Amino acid sequence: MIERPGNDAALAALRAALGAERVLTEPAVLEIYAGDDGPGRCPPRAVVFPRSHEEVAALVRAAHGARLPLVARGAGSGNVGGALPTPGSVVVSFECMQRILEFDPADRLMRVETGVITAEIERLARSQGLFYPPDPGSAPYCRIGGNLAMNAAGPRALKYGVTRDYVLGLRAVGGDGRTLVSGCRTSKGVVGYDLTRLLVGSEGTLALITEATLRLLPAPAAVGTLRVCYDATAQACRAVQRVMAQPIIPCALEFMDAHALAAIQRAGGAIDLPAATRAMLMVEADGEAAQVAAHLQSLRQALEGPGLVEIKQAMAADEVARLWSARRALSGAVKALAPLKINEDIVVPVSRLPELMARIEALAERYRLPIVSFGHAGNGNLHVNIMAHPERAGEMARAEACLRALFETVLELGGTLSGEHGIGAAKRAFVPLEIPADTLALMRAIKRAFDPHGILNPGKMFPDEISD
Amino acid sequence: MIERPGNDAALAALRAALGAERVLTEPAVLEIYAGDDGPGRCPPRAVVFPRSHEEVAALVRAAHGARLPLVARGAGSGNVGGALPTPGSVVVSFECMQRILEFDPADRLMRVETGVITAEIERLARSQGLFYPPDPGSAPYCRIGGNLAMNAAGPRALKYGVTRDYVLGLRAVGGDGRTLVSGCRTSKGVVGYDLTRLLVGSEGTLALITEATLRLLPAPAAVGTLRVCYDATAQACRAVQRVMAQPIIPCALEFMDAHALAAIQRAGGAIDLPAATRAMLMVEADGEAAQVAAHLQSLRQALEGPGLVEIKQAMAADEVARLWSARRALSGAVKALAPLKINEDIVVPVSRLPELMARIEALAERYRLPIVSFGHAGNGNLHVNIMAHPERAGEMARAEACLRALFETVLELGGTLSGEHGIGAAKRAFVPLEIPADTLALMRAIKRAFDPHGILNPGKMFPDEISD
Repeated sequence: MIERPGNDAALAALRAALGAERVLTEPAVLEIYAGDDGPGRCPPRAVVFPRSHEEVAALVRAAHGARLPLVARGAGSGNVGGALPTPGSVVVSFECMQRILEFDPADRLMRVETGVITAEIERLARSQGLFYPPDPGSAPYCRIGGNLAMNAAGPRALKYGVTRDYVLGLRAVGGDGRTLVSGCRTSKGVVGYDLTRLLVGSEGTLALITEATLRLLPAPAAVGTLRVCYDATAQACRAVQRVMAQPIIPCALEFMDAHALAAIQRAGGAIDLPAATRAMLMVEADGEAAQVAAHLQSLRQALEGPGLVEIKQAMAADEVARLWSARRALSGAVKALAPLKINEDIVVPVSRLPELMARIEALAERYRLPIVSFGHAGNGNLHVNIMAHPERAGEMARAEACLRALFETVLELGGTLSGEHGIGAAKRAFVPLEIPADTLALMRAIKRAFDPHGILNPGKMFPDEISD
Repeated sequence: MIERPGNDAALAALRAALGAERVLTEPAVLEIYAGDDGPGRCPPRAVVFPRSHEEVAALVRAAHGARLPLVARGAGSGNVGGALPTPGSVVVSFECMQRILEFDPADRLMRVETGVITAEIERLARSQGLFYPPDPGSAPYCRIGGNLAMNAAGPRALKYGVTRDYVLGLRAVGGDGRTLVSGCRTSKGVVGYDLTRLLVGSEGTLALITEATLRLLPAPAAVGTLRVCYDATAQACRAVQRVMAQPIIPCALEFMDAHALAAIQRAGGAIDLPAATRAMLMVEADGEAAQVAAHLQSLRQALEGPGLVEIKQAMAADEVARLWSARRALSGAVKALAPLKINEDIVVPVSRLPELMARIEALAERYRLPIVSFGHAGNGNLHVNIMAHPERAGEMARAEACLRALFETVLELGGTLSGEHGIGAAKRAFVPLEIPADTLALMRAIKRAFDPHGILNPGKMFPDEISD
């Protein structure tokens, strides 16, 4: 059903839609767009650079006619191969759609093209006392379209929610080239099905999102940070539970296990920890200045308990910045520990965190592989990294068995396979562990309603079909 | 395609699925289930009372086989005929599915059958220091399934969001009888399409929702109320804008125009207003006790301005209760003003509120009909009631022309036709004013994916099709 390279008519149609200079096929260019920050590489057949919604609609119509697969791409900073080209596919890069179409501080919204860098939205909002809460680690360079496709999150999701919670409306192009408009400009609206939230998190498989109207909030006036060290992972997990059982919801509650702390030290992260530290929490509260001080006090009380080594408060701004910079660099720092990092972002209910960590330690022992865990513990959302040397005999087989055992454990504990990275190409084989067959069949039917020829990001999100 | 009365085999199949005593066809019973709180009445062919998800699945399979239309019903408190039977349809009442399946304070969630009364969820949550934020006026008697179907809201939506924002996951039965499972138990999760939010607000047209896992929040310790009187509607609207331009988001910002205030007085609502009052705001802040006092102070500053008649604070608890009781009784009190109340719940961006109110006053004058406006002004979501005497010559035609002009005005101001009531049977003809044809066609395709024979709540949400 999908055309393979060699059908030059398809590329000619794209050139007709966009202009020849916006359809690149030079091997050096294709190499740049051959993957994202997830596993796998495959140069696409071409990369195209539309400049407007209308050009996106024109190119999708052309691709629909030619049965040409399209892979939407923001900055390529995703972790799961969501923007990984499939053989013969064309990458649609949104780099040339970076306009802020409207910024309305009175109605607390911003309408943007989906190639805008996420941090640019945040910067502009802050200039008027507002902020855009979702804060993926890649915010300085990722594009909002990628955030929308994956329903991106970050530390602040604990208090403020995820990308989905900040989208008022979308403009998009379905797989048949038709323009779709969803949502509204107001904070309430119930007319028609909620296509906005159906498109958010759909990983480029239903439509290409060209414009988003984003909801903004008043920026908190102050933020305060605690660095809290424990002598054991289990004790840090129990502290997370105590924090989440009292009424103050922190705007960040990040966890790092001993392996993660070692990776930071090895990468030269200047955070000076007490010797007994085996796990660390970073806890932040935001709000008005007076309130933040009171909240940190309440949080301290919840954080105190068995195994506490140290609570550090009132850090200088540069010390807090160093801490966050080390936290944000962790993903890269962990990569240095072994040639292969199988990087998951599983979630369990907070009540099951201690059990999860104990089971992860048992998996590391059983499969004889280091497992490094850190992340958004307040949401029960941990980045669990299984580290392997593929060249060592048997180690890949052990890593794969370990991964499956991890997923089974997570589901057994009432959790989910992914909290913010998505499924992409990397995890689709595991989706049937979580989603029952009938529900999955319905999702495929929705996909066909949006994209009758299956040209939008094929081979992502869904497992291969045995028959269909 | 849809069976009409007379096909007894269809009812026999339902009796086989549920037991004969749960399939009622007595005319007196059918009369009770012939409508909701919206316009129109039509006795169904039968009313059925399933007791479990499995029974719902069995009855939908039977109805699917017999092409029998099903109308899901909670408490019948909806405003738009969402639960209005169509000729020959069977009402599925969730009255016998009222179990709280799970209440987990540690993970801040509650799993309920969808016949549970909304206030019961709130009461149980409060017993453990938590709360369920959505607060439709009907909460004391409506059922959570109806709230899910319509994406219900209420005053607290301003600060806390709507029903959609508090649903972690659903269990439901699609129109072909298949069980669908969406979402998860955790506050983050991105595996598969977001069927949870697609089903919320789908008005019973995609699936029958049997179970919901709801997210709860820590209950605010204190709440403070301001009653604020202005000498003109426009001045009250400008005060709303000033409130929404400063950083403290109130947990309620309710508006009542002079007609609404007169209706309260006429209904015997004991609220003693200064004589110069022509519009009133009710403003609430919640949080910790110390914080609430400071927030009310900030809100007062924003509320002060031209046209202010009085700000009343530090009311006794019973005075606040009387105020809210008058506010909640408004919908009924307005009904007493004329035999027909065309009750809308339009939304405009807050920046356009003064213009909206001026245009509504002009419409009232032009069409010579009283229009009573009140509601959730902080969201720009107003209940606009066009009052008419259908027996007076020409008045219905004027009312209908006025309604269309209102909707056109709202859309011209960047708003939406409904903020919380939904479309149901009452407003479906107006949907094409807001949703473009291609997007509507896609929504119909989604409907077919869930409900291939179109048996779930036919004749709702969508305009009639010219051809299809």
